[in-house]
Amino acid sequence: MEILSDPKSARRYVIERQSTGETLAVVPTMGALHDGHLSLVEIGKEKCDRVVATIFVNPTQFAPGEDLDKYPRTLKQDLARLESLGTDAVFVPEVSSMYPDGCTTSVSPPRVAEGLEGSFRPEHFGGVCTIVLKLFQCLPCNVGVFGQKDYQQLLVIKAMVRDLNLPIEVLSGEIIRDQDGLAMSSRNRYLSAVERENALCIPKALRSLQDDVQSGVTSVEELQERLIARLEDSEAVAHAARDAAEGQPIQRGVDSLDYAVVVDSETLEPIEKLNRPAVALVAARVGQTRLIDNCTISV
Amino acid sequence: MEILSDPKSARRYVIERQSTGETLAVVPTMGALHDGHLSLVEIGKEKCDRVVATIFVNPTQFAPGEDLDKYPRTLKQDLARLESLGTDAVFVPEVSSMYPDGCTTSVSPPRVAEGLEGSFRPEHFGGVCTIVLKLFQCLPCNVGVFGQKDYQQLLVIKAMVRDLNLPIEVLSGEIIRDQDGLAMSSRNRYLSAVERENALCIPKALRSLQDDVQSGVTSVEELQERLIARLEDSEAVAHAARDAAEGQPIQRGVDSLDYAVVVDSETLEPIEKLNRPAVALVAARVGQTRLIDNCTISV
Repeated sequence: MEILSDPKSARRYVIERQSTGETLAVVPTMGALHDGHLSLVEIGKEKCDRVVATIFVNPTQFAPGEDLDKYPRTLKQDLARLESLGTDAVFVPEVSSMYPDGCTTSVSPPRVAEGLEGSFRPEHFGGVCTIVLKLFQCLPCNVGVFGQKDYQQLLVIKAMVRDLNLPIEVLSGEIIRDQDGLAMSSRNRYLSAVERENALCIPKALRSLQDDVQSGVTSVEELQERLIARLEDSEAVAHAARDAAEGQPIQRGVDSLDYAVVVDSETLEPIEKLNRPAVALVAARVGQTRLIDNCTISV
Repeated sequence: MEILSDPKSARRYVIERQSTGETLAVVPTMGALHDGHLSLVEIGKEKCDRVVATIFVNPTQFAPGEDLDKYPRTLKQDLARLESLGTDAVFVPEVSSMYPDGCTTSVSPPRVAEGLEGSFRPEHFGGVCTIVLKLFQCLPCNVGVFGQKDYQQLLVIKAMVRDLNLPIEVLSGEIIRDQDGLAMSSRNRYLSAVERENALCIPKALRSLQDDVQSGVTSVEELQERLIARLEDSEAVAHAARDAAEGQPIQRGVDSLDYAVVVDSETLEPIEKLNRPAVALVAARVGQTRLIDNCTISV
């Protein structure tokens, strides 16, 4: 597995292989790899002759006060996992080589970046778009692979690629969950055992939402109310006494809810009825840890 | 000469030629070609195996009320001139294919876009950066050639290319002037004969500035004062009686001056003394026509 740290050598790696007719996929990551990331590498391998992962904790997508400094960095293990999977190359640039002094151009993200994550993290998608565009220039691959856990990000990147005529096919990988149902995330390692138990109300609430849809609920207002109730402690309180009696940790729900919505799955615009493909999107804090999760809803 | 109208065929044109080892230069234009544009095509031909011009009146770099609608469109003559020069291909996309419905991603330009043109045309460089980035994706050439008459634009594009890791070498062509000294511009055709006479105070003032520098003036404040005096009617008024007596059109200077400055030639920041490479930049209106011009000052 080739380790590339310099943008020029990264570009040369891709161009040389494309010149012999090979296709390449890039899987951009911030490291701290879990099975979700690795599933994206598998998708890249299936689709293309070669797959290149990137590991770069991108400072411009973190706001002051967010977790840039404590974001987990596990480079040695990341490289071992990528190598065991047959990844062909990894691009691991320094911050100073991606953002040299005086670097002030950025991407102003597409409309689908507004609202939801865009409201709670106003600079986030600008940073994401900028680094993804830059990575696509350093690694002019045929395919880019992104995870559906960051659902809005996936739509943002698809829109940017289309709007800026980037010659990249964007593929996506399904959410990978741990056995307990929690969507895999590098930030899950911030959770204490009790917080993790509490966090499980998120996948449970999304599964219950799908059950509601199966059983015929089509009012988005009602679905959102039920989703919020399951995420906040209103329902948890009702079960707390029983859980305690059964020796289970008391489910308290999330500590604060940024949003829990059911929206159009392409535009993320509000809808009233489930008469088109929709997605349920949740962002919540459990302890100090901000988690996001989602599920698509087909009708 | 190949005429390309669709982004995909444009890309295919470039990739096919690069795959045989050829290098390509792109010369982005808005059409209404003059010898300034053609000199850029010559630079592209000298530097690369093939040269591709683009003709696209980019709506996103015009503000409401600017001259988008009346901007001169002379496609037939443009194509003839490009062909006679040995241009290999011309990319002439429709607005709807560069900006399809829902296209909302843009480039937020680098710091050097602030001030000067950026102050008088606040959305201008965002539009320029966005279309140039898009054209570079449609036409992934080795070299891009831009004119020095749009001096700040040239710095903006160089900064964007560096900041976003675009694999393009940016070359520039010197200002080409008509015999009377006026910098060639597609907008010169808006000028009446009398306005054109008046507009000549711009190149004259820039030449006089260079004389001042030659004769030892190093105070930027003094240079700027003299430049402004020559552009506005203060000096013209003094000569008006003589000009009239000699049967010359009365030189009235420009009708309004947006700016006339001497600044650092790389950062466009103010300087006090001519102790580093500088540039004099002028933007002024003659009649309804907004003209820009500049000259570099080496010390």
